[in-house]
Amino acid sequence: MAPEAQAGRQPSPAIIFDTLNAYQRTRALKTGIELGLFTIIGEGNTASKAVAEKCGASERGTRILCDFLVISGFLTKEGNSYGLTPDSATFLDKRSPAYMGTVSEFILSPNLVENFDHLTEAVQKGGTAGDTKPLEPDHPMWVRFARAMAPMMAMPSQLMAQLVDPTKDKKLRLLDIAAGHGLFGLAFAKQNPQVEVTAVDWPNVLEVAQENAQTAGVADRFQTKPGSAFDVDYGTEYDIVLLTNFLHHFDVGTCETLLRKVHAALKVGGRAVTLEFVPNDDRVSPPQAAAFAMMMLGMTPAGDAYTFAELDRMFRHAGFGRSELHELPPTIQRVVISYK
Amino acid sequence: MAPEAQAGRQPSPAIIFDTLNAYQRTRALKTGIELGLFTIIGEGNTASKAVAEKCGASERGTRILCDFLVISGFLTKEGNSYGLTPDSATFLDKRSPAYMGTVSEFILSPNLVENFDHLTEAVQKGGTAGDTKPLEPDHPMWVRFARAMAPMMAMPSQLMAQLVDPTKDKKLRLLDIAAGHGLFGLAFAKQNPQVEVTAVDWPNVLEVAQENAQTAGVADRFQTKPGSAFDVDYGTEYDIVLLTNFLHHFDVGTCETLLRKVHAALKVGGRAVTLEFVPNDDRVSPPQAAAFAMMMLGMTPAGDAYTFAELDRMFRHAGFGRSELHELPPTIQRVVISYK
Repeated sequence: MAPEAQAGRQPSPAIIFDTLNAYQRTRALKTGIELGLFTIIGEGNTASKAVAEKCGASERGTRILCDFLVISGFLTKEGNSYGLTPDSATFLDKRSPAYMGTVSEFILSPNLVENFDHLTEAVQKGGTAGDTKPLEPDHPMWVRFARAMAPMMAMPSQLMAQLVDPTKDKKLRLLDIAAGHGLFGLAFAKQNPQVEVTAVDWPNVLEVAQENAQTAGVADRFQTKPGSAFDVDYGTEYDIVLLTNFLHHFDVGTCETLLRKVHAALKVGGRAVTLEFVPNDDRVSPPQAAAFAMMMLGMTPAGDAYTFAELDRMFRHAGFGRSELHELPPTIQRVVISYK
Repeated sequence: MAPEAQAGRQPSPAIIFDTLNAYQRTRALKTGIELGLFTIIGEGNTASKAVAEKCGASERGTRILCDFLVISGFLTKEGNSYGLTPDSATFLDKRSPAYMGTVSEFILSPNLVENFDHLTEAVQKGGTAGDTKPLEPDHPMWVRFARAMAPMMAMPSQLMAQLVDPTKDKKLRLLDIAAGHGLFGLAFAKQNPQVEVTAVDWPNVLEVAQENAQTAGVADRFQTKPGSAFDVDYGTEYDIVLLTNFLHHFDVGTCETLLRKVHAALKVGGRAVTLEFVPNDDRVSPPQAAAFAMMMLGMTPAGDAYTFAELDRMFRHAGFGRSELHELPPTIQRVVISYK
């Protein structure tokens, strides 16, 4: 509820009650995904009894879950008939090419969620009070990340490749830092046969990226450099360096150290392309990008959702010229293109 | 996001991302309450540095928490200055008589929240897959409930007493079933010196109600009947029997058994007064009342948020005549008055 909605009415504890129970929305969506409920409804089972039978669940439990998912904006209800919203049909029905139900396995893995059991301590100390092992080399979490999050990145990776290489007719050497599933670099290679991709990440993660390069049919233009993005020798004379969802894990000084290395790897006129949650200068809009700062407070020692002004300053300190901010609709992220 | 908001735009995964992270809103509000942040801002500390100093927390952590609480609707932000929304000033600033920060201690007690770690199983079996010990006699949870939830019930109890006894000039014998903190019955006694209250609950819980009767200055018109609402002898010839937030724990058959006992305890013309989360017949509106069914699925073997039609039927099966539905604004609950 926006503050302006509170003007002109009696104070109400509804928002407090809603927010204290918001964790139930998280759990209900996870359960809906686990039971395949959205796929079952998408297949035309619309009454709670039919949905329950197909889910292998009780009718009562299914009815309460479905109603709650209507209230939460994931299902429609007409009479006693449930249906998918456009968002659910696109992203939560397994038959959709954009299905991304797997992201819940990563986003809600216990070692991430449990960080927020210690949020008060994190606010006190100014960084995560939980487990920081995931930031160490070769942590298996990043393999899970690469596998589970790939479906969520299919659309943004295509949109970014179209934004950055709209003509698709020039030879481009591209370095993909902390490539993970590799989809961002691979999207460039898929749309432009003259793109050659070099991916940096931990060895165990690069196996996932290599699989995705095979699947995309571009393995002959895909090579890897295993190791830490802070240590590995990138090589030089790249046209493009991708930094997708990476800088937010680190403090400004660490980011600038990395960006100097990125700058050295680019040819003159080359571009660093950053995909990030970029809040406006007010740090409270747009809401999803701004809220990502909380994710970093809970989970990292000193990460943040950086504003464009902060990113621009980091890039300039690292030797870059101007940076440009681009929206990437309908995603909730933004792209910063910085020129050497 | 309401489904209609999805029409006419590209599908977006924003709602999925928001909902998978909704548990962070719960945690952030809890942390804000634990740190006394709302009181500190209410006292005029509006910059994150000043708020951090008063909270004994880091400036970075405080800034990220405050921004997140702006996004979540609990704070305002103008430039770098934070302020309280009307709802936060009323319910989350300790200096307010309506302060209800303590409710988070109960609503978020681990044994309640952990039920939702087993939500998929609960949907499968049709009832809680967690700990059902809290429904057994003398469980200490209900003492915590009585202490922590009382502040949330101060306003509803007054509103209900005004609705049910508007003239305040007649002698009334009132039975308060599962009285907990006792505030509902005590609100009648406080506004009408001819009201005599008898409260039923477990002995350990009634100690809290007795304290509240002392504080309210009506202990001489307050007596107790310790024991289970299903077993204890209520006595007879009551004008009013209160059933506040009790029926939702049980299935229809169990409710009807209880209501027959309530019916027998009332004098002819007497009224059963039920305070509940009462969804409309569609079971998805109003959202907060309808969402309460999920709380009961997660936490009880067979409880529910009953519609007025369902409650009316239960009362009629138990021997009552007509029932009336009343709103209780600005609360999110409704009152059902059933006549013997």
